[in-house]
Amino acid sequence: MLIDPNADIEITAFEWVPSFAQGQVRDLRPRWACEEYGIAYEVRLISALERPEWYYDEQPWGQVPYVRDGQWGLFESGAILVHLAERVGVLPPPTLQARADILSWLFAAFSSVEPFIQEFVNCTVFNRKEEWAKLRLPSLEQVVDKRLERLQQALGEKEWLAGEFSIADIAMVSVLRPIKDAAQFQERPALWDYVARAEGRPAFARALEAQLAVFAQHEPAPQTAR
Amino acid sequence: MLIDPNADIEITAFEWVPSFAQGQVRDLRPRWACEEYGIAYEVRLISALERPEWYYDEQPWGQVPYVRDGQWGLFESGAILVHLAERVGVLPPPTLQARADILSWLFAAFSSVEPFIQEFVNCTVFNRKEEWAKLRLPSLEQVVDKRLERLQQALGEKEWLAGEFSIADIAMVSVLRPIKDAAQFQERPALWDYVARAEGRPAFARALEAQLAVFAQHEPAPQTAR
Repeated sequence: MLIDPNADIEITAFEWVPSFAQGQVRDLRPRWACEEYGIAYEVRLISALERPEWYYDEQPWGQVPYVRDGQWGLFESGAILVHLAERVGVLPPPTLQARADILSWLFAAFSSVEPFIQEFVNCTVFNRKEEWAKLRLPSLEQVVDKRLERLQQALGEKEWLAGEFSIADIAMVSVLRPIKDAAQFQERPALWDYVARAEGRPAFARALEAQLAVFAQHEPAPQTAR
Repeated sequence: MLIDPNADIEITAFEWVPSFAQGQVRDLRPRWACEEYGIAYEVRLISALERPEWYYDEQPWGQVPYVRDGQWGLFESGAILVHLAERVGVLPPPTLQARADILSWLFAAFSSVEPFIQEFVNCTVFNRKEEWAKLRLPSLEQVVDKRLERLQQALGEKEWLAGEFSIADIAMVSVLRPIKDAAQFQERPALWDYVARAEGRPAFARALEAQLAVFAQHEPAPQTAR
């Protein structure tokens, strides 16, 4: 792991979240990119349950990640991924189709895939007992299904979305992971293989391990009944 | 208007949409950027009602805009805005906070604001008669409300989100426009002023006029009863 208290890059993460969210919190994205590209980083922890008011000055929604690079900072996973890739020179120049493909798929992950998956998780996990969620689900399942089908078609026989493994894959795999167990996903072996291929990368494993280690360290004491 | 049949930039747009969608279709975003930055462009029209199957090879969701620049192409509004800004050199270099701010707010518009607004429009327009939409609306209104409040706070006294007017403003104003009439929006005069300021720009007016002109030209003949 590339965690170094003197690193220029500082990733803000939550000190603890409930077990269902562990391994899904979005600081995993810049951690993964840092591990892929050999960028040392340090971590600043904030409480997820009581988010400090000052944090909204840095990250307008109070979410993670927020990333500082030396004196200045960025928010939104997509912007952070672009910055980290530019920092190590792995983003092709603006004159190449490869860059256009990476940017197109990066925005596609966050603008055209994640919103539907997020609402799907909203309906099947967070609000699954709400009447609206039960009634909403059938039409939403159709939308998710159609989008995954188009994504699988676009991936085709390719190993990664835009040539070499890139920040577009970090983005797309991150937004797909929360629905790995859903039928719409399981029925698409090419997408399944794509996510498994990405999760099999050593850099992903190190990033995941680093996130989970923080949560283990900050696990609240169990309420003992005696 | 900068429409030129010999331009390198080609924006794919719909030839006609029903009146409630006119002025909101997303080819407005690259049209606006082209008008702001003095980039000549041509337009390729496809049918919104019967989208050609070949188009999915270029734009995986069958949506507009898709933009070609000479031999190669991009999809997703965000990627296209980055490309157009890079093309004319108005995106600051990666070493400056100004670039970080533009990228952060650009992704914020498409990843953290638009998804909620889209679902809000889903509930209040497209599916307003569905039971799930009526039941979903109260909690969704709260989410939209909170996000607009945070956005208004982040904007503060600033004229634009990231220093000078930028692609981040083109993005944010474009995603806010569909809810201009909603109470959550009307109650926030600073946001209202921000959108009005952007819509008051001559480049916006030219882009809107260009989109509407296409629809007027392709208006289906009224079905006469005789």
